[in-house]
Amino acid sequence: MKIDLHTHILPKDWPDLKEKYGYGGFVQLDHFKPCCAKMMIDGKVFREIHDNCWDPKVRVEDCDKTDVNVQVLSTVPVMFSYWAKPKDTLDLSKYLNDHIASVINDYPDRFLGLGTLPMQSPGLAVREMERCIKDLNLSGIEIGSHINEWNLDNENLFPIYEAAEELGAAIFVHPWDMMGKEKMQKYWLPWLVGMPAETSLAICSIIFGGVFEKFKKLKICFSHGGGSFPFTIGRIEHGFNVRPDLVAVDNKVNPKEYIGKFWLDSLVHDETALKYLVDLVGDEKIVLGSDYPFPLGEHQPGKLIESMSMLSAESKERLLWKNAAEFLGAENFK
Amino acid sequence: MKIDLHTHILPKDWPDLKEKYGYGGFVQLDHFKPCCAKMMIDGKVFREIHDNCWDPKVRVEDCDKTDVNVQVLSTVPVMFSYWAKPKDTLDLSKYLNDHIASVINDYPDRFLGLGTLPMQSPGLAVREMERCIKDLNLSGIEIGSHINEWNLDNENLFPIYEAAEELGAAIFVHPWDMMGKEKMQKYWLPWLVGMPAETSLAICSIIFGGVFEKFKKLKICFSHGGGSFPFTIGRIEHGFNVRPDLVAVDNKVNPKEYIGKFWLDSLVHDETALKYLVDLVGDEKIVLGSDYPFPLGEHQPGKLIESMSMLSAESKERLLWKNAAEFLGAENFK
Repeated sequence: MKIDLHTHILPKDWPDLKEKYGYGGFVQLDHFKPCCAKMMIDGKVFREIHDNCWDPKVRVEDCDKTDVNVQVLSTVPVMFSYWAKPKDTLDLSKYLNDHIASVINDYPDRFLGLGTLPMQSPGLAVREMERCIKDLNLSGIEIGSHINEWNLDNENLFPIYEAAEELGAAIFVHPWDMMGKEKMQKYWLPWLVGMPAETSLAICSIIFGGVFEKFKKLKICFSHGGGSFPFTIGRIEHGFNVRPDLVAVDNKVNPKEYIGKFWLDSLVHDETALKYLVDLVGDEKIVLGSDYPFPLGEHQPGKLIESMSMLSAESKERLLWKNAAEFLGAENFK
Repeated sequence: MKIDLHTHILPKDWPDLKEKYGYGGFVQLDHFKPCCAKMMIDGKVFREIHDNCWDPKVRVEDCDKTDVNVQVLSTVPVMFSYWAKPKDTLDLSKYLNDHIASVINDYPDRFLGLGTLPMQSPGLAVREMERCIKDLNLSGIEIGSHINEWNLDNENLFPIYEAAEELGAAIFVHPWDMMGKEKMQKYWLPWLVGMPAETSLAICSIIFGGVFEKFKKLKICFSHGGGSFPFTIGRIEHGFNVRPDLVAVDNKVNPKEYIGKFWLDSLVHDETALKYLVDLVGDEKIVLGSDYPFPLGEHQPGKLIESMSMLSAESKERLLWKNAAEFLGAENFK
């Protein structure tokens, strides 16, 4: 059994958002040949994608080839559109969430889903989250590593955390809008350096903002093995200890206390690194995540976990699906 | 025997640079009480420091208490001043380098030194580096993780690398001017999240820019255990493999090939993390670095290394001083 928590999906088509909302900046797909499309932003190519990004049949075939039983679907972070007018982000979120719900509905034993929300407008976000969980049967939400000028400790976001806790909605945090991207023009560095930093920013903000203290039942998973957080935890804890006047201003609890209380996906692409992660976190909070269908992901989801000689069969089972099922509240899924 | 590669020093006083150069932005010290000073930038407190930051006697006493035989002195990164007019950065660099040279000269068996250069003006930088090595008896230079708009792969910097190679000058790379700092107003995050990202930016830029290929004898050490690079090496390598069109544009060599060819300091504040680093890099390229005299540093330099049960006595000796001696070309120092 394998549940892949970290996969992205798009509808095959959606309305012309520039026309619909009256301003640009949104992604549109240009299906320039049968199995391929270009994600375009204001006429500029953002990324080329294939039909496994939108066609559930192709996805199921891929899953069958790699023994993945269940994919957890979430949108591609560039679709978050938190920068847009809240009513428009809400409208787009609804479209994307309805699409994910329809795919789940068509293949109820192969897909679970996470919604996207207009996080820049917490009132709207809470209502759409309720719809996602109650009406659309989604398991939770995917959010960015920050929301425009707000980091994840921002009090404006607390109503969203409160609602997620009440609804039992899982929160999957994905890096986007990478810090320093304007200074990293070469070598894909926003993805290789900026994304891990964004994830550490997100984890530190949640911890130091006291979010886990205020919302004790909140279930949060961070992508890419926690980015740069796990290896720099010593520095982060030391900073907390030596400069509490700067670091411990909103939460007096040592950041290491939270290790093992939140989830991390397994996407680190290196055996020594995954071993480090298990040494640090234990085997109950790491979940298989492949970033399917993108090239920076694990092309055979779970291969790294399965190859780990240090892990018992029981631990592997935890990482491959049991932890994800707990995170998603999907223990009785099968 | 212990050589602490990563320590910072300032002169007790220096000229009023705003007055001297005709514009602001520079650090000045305000000695507001006997043992303490405030580092001020344009009238605003940047950091409070103590006399161990400028008084070699106090430093030697501290070293004696913690069994550190030799401190390698470098300036505080905020002094780099790469943003200033090149002739002024050169003037300031000379002042700082002359000061470090004088301390080394006064305590030849307790201190070694690394100079600072006007990196934004490679011609001036090369001449000052020659002076540092040939006239001032310094072991190398300390440079920032980027130089204004240039990352460390920028061709403008190649004459500096070439000169360092010829002179046998060691290069110690320190994060500064942290990416995303404007978005990280709370919790000391530029230091806890931005600095590790800066160091990964520096390592990736050097590797993907082919700097190690062009300058095969270049000796480079990165601070803070390599920041976020070591734990994200799998992601970085995977990015190189799957998108060579973006990543392998200037260097076709797999980034993992360079592991063990450059140095990293030991400043990770966590036993599991240091163990990971040794697993990844081996025991020949990790050097004791404490960030003395700053609170984010290791207050008992070398304590973490000495506590590591996985390390043999021989490996500990390598980390505590032999690797640093090799890096600095100071094998015959004692």
